[in-house]
Amino acid sequence: MPGPVTVPAEALEDFARDIFVATGLSVDDSTALARSFVWASLRGIDSHGIARVPRYVEMFESGVANPTASITVDDTRPGAAVVDADFAPGPIALTRAATLAVEKAKSQGVAIVSVRNTVHTGAIGYYASLIADQGLIGIGIAAGSPMMSYTGAVGASVATSPLAIGVPSGAGRPTVLLDMATSLIAMGKIADYKRKGLPLPDGSATTADGTPTTDPEAAKVPTPLGGAKGSGLSLMFELVTSVLVTAPILTPYHAGTKKHRQNATLIVIDPAAFGDVGEFIANVDATVETIHALPKAEGVDEIFVPGERSSAKAANRSEAGIPVGEKLWTELVDLAAALGVVVPEVG
Amino acid sequence: MPGPVTVPAEALEDFARDIFVATGLSVDDSTALARSFVWASLRGIDSHGIARVPRYVEMFESGVANPTASITVDDTRPGAAVVDADFAPGPIALTRAATLAVEKAKSQGVAIVSVRNTVHTGAIGYYASLIADQGLIGIGIAAGSPMMSYTGAVGASVATSPLAIGVPSGAGRPTVLLDMATSLIAMGKIADYKRKGLPLPDGSATTADGTPTTDPEAAKVPTPLGGAKGSGLSLMFELVTSVLVTAPILTPYHAGTKKHRQNATLIVIDPAAFGDVGEFIANVDATVETIHALPKAEGVDEIFVPGERSSAKAANRSEAGIPVGEKLWTELVDLAAALGVVVPEVG
Repeated sequence: MPGPVTVPAEALEDFARDIFVATGLSVDDSTALARSFVWASLRGIDSHGIARVPRYVEMFESGVANPTASITVDDTRPGAAVVDADFAPGPIALTRAATLAVEKAKSQGVAIVSVRNTVHTGAIGYYASLIADQGLIGIGIAAGSPMMSYTGAVGASVATSPLAIGVPSGAGRPTVLLDMATSLIAMGKIADYKRKGLPLPDGSATTADGTPTTDPEAAKVPTPLGGAKGSGLSLMFELVTSVLVTAPILTPYHAGTKKHRQNATLIVIDPAAFGDVGEFIANVDATVETIHALPKAEGVDEIFVPGERSSAKAANRSEAGIPVGEKLWTELVDLAAALGVVVPEVG
Repeated sequence: MPGPVTVPAEALEDFARDIFVATGLSVDDSTALARSFVWASLRGIDSHGIARVPRYVEMFESGVANPTASITVDDTRPGAAVVDADFAPGPIALTRAATLAVEKAKSQGVAIVSVRNTVHTGAIGYYASLIADQGLIGIGIAAGSPMMSYTGAVGASVATSPLAIGVPSGAGRPTVLLDMATSLIAMGKIADYKRKGLPLPDGSATTADGTPTTDPEAAKVPTPLGGAKGSGLSLMFELVTSVLVTAPILTPYHAGTKKHRQNATLIVIDPAAFGDVGEFIANVDATVETIHALPKAEGVDEIFVPGERSSAKAANRSEAGIPVGEKLWTELVDLAAALGVVVPEVG
């Protein structure tokens, strides 16, 4: 078994792409998947990074995800469209949705594109960041299967539905990018605590029967951010994504239909519809500087805006390469061997 | 001094309207203000209800708010517009913005109308509910002066910027209406604890110098919802409202310009752009029923969706009248006497 390795971002993207091509996806779709995973791995969002490659291959091979999906776009209004993903994963369907929403927003001032019937949205912040890279404001929300508790109820009741907002900034500065689950801590974080053998923060999870626990082994259900606020937000996101596109998840799920399905809504706002774009960007940068310059709490060296730390990590990993753990690398190498894919040279 | 009274909602609305007319506002603007306050008082949102009448009269008389504002609408794109409130309060400017956004969304599928230079947005949930009353989805965010802490910083750093989402439901059912601050508890709630002499929930506020406190007398700065998530959300809302309409608040505020100013953004989504509206409404209702039917935690009699409890209170107060405390009623009666306004008969 090879040890932990460091792989240049480009080589890792090509490797992931080749694995998906060998699984039966088109080069374009394979590239869309590989790019989104490398974006997340660069930023240290390991739960949505390259570790997903074997999981996605499994989803394609088991028929949960469709490797040759016929994505259809219903272009209903000047500012609105519905994308049916035909069970393609999010990085394929939502990248297309983001491109369409940017195009529409540029003429209308704002656009909304909702995606129904995807199997896994991926990192919702990725799409908000793609939109911000075009100089527009991107807002993304996703809905999925119940995993989180709902205030007053016992057990997994609603999804941990995330919200992402990306705002473009001046040249050489990172996109201001918020990407947050509606749970207090994400499912992926609970797995991190379990791996490290550390207790969970107070009030962040319950057992399956609703008893609060800080034991990551016993924790089955994360609790909502701020109680009723977080569970209310998650419910609203189900209404504004799944129910909006006539693909409800909560109602069939709790009636016993536990099909793997996710939906997402992207809203794009064109700052050019509101005034001078140069002035907008200058005010974004000035606001970020204002936050940086706030009086610091004791023991705090630096105050950050959302997205700043992951962007610094991405800059670092772009130079140094992406670390891939021993277990995951072995899995990728075995997968490549089975599919006849060449493994890149690693450090 | 008269005791606490109960006033029929209609009489209270007329009374508030007459006070604003006597202060120099037009009948239309006075009606817009009175309606928004009675809406909040009916629902038990006292901090944005009829108690605001004397405060608004003060704002008009001191010149903070403009009683004869010339509100201008810059209709920039098919789906976007900017409303300059000319320092009219929110209920005047945002009611107009909501009407315009609904009209635009009906043809474009989605619309965004941002309001700059208002002095107090009022209850942001009110505008989301006006939009939902027209059968559309309303999203409202507001930005104002720093009151809340920011993760890593000391003191009042960012606003408690609220988010409201209103989704229409079937006949006879309340709008699903989330209306939440980005702070753990609202400023108004801290005042409630102070009045009742009760300690604040752990971690909900600090003193001016950043020391955590549960003493409502010492509490000066509410803490953000979920730490970095809440303060990050508040910052994003400043960027997507104030900075979007070239009326930044945080940067000039922290540079010493403490002018009273707020901004807001309304986004309206037309469900008709996404499929059959009847099916949409049926799925909203079914999702609400799904939440109601979740297994209940010990000691819980009923599980609620956002907006349901305040809607029940509003139904009750529409029948029974709105309770007005002794101190506030005296203030209103004195104000009426000074302005030559007839006081309604009360129970």
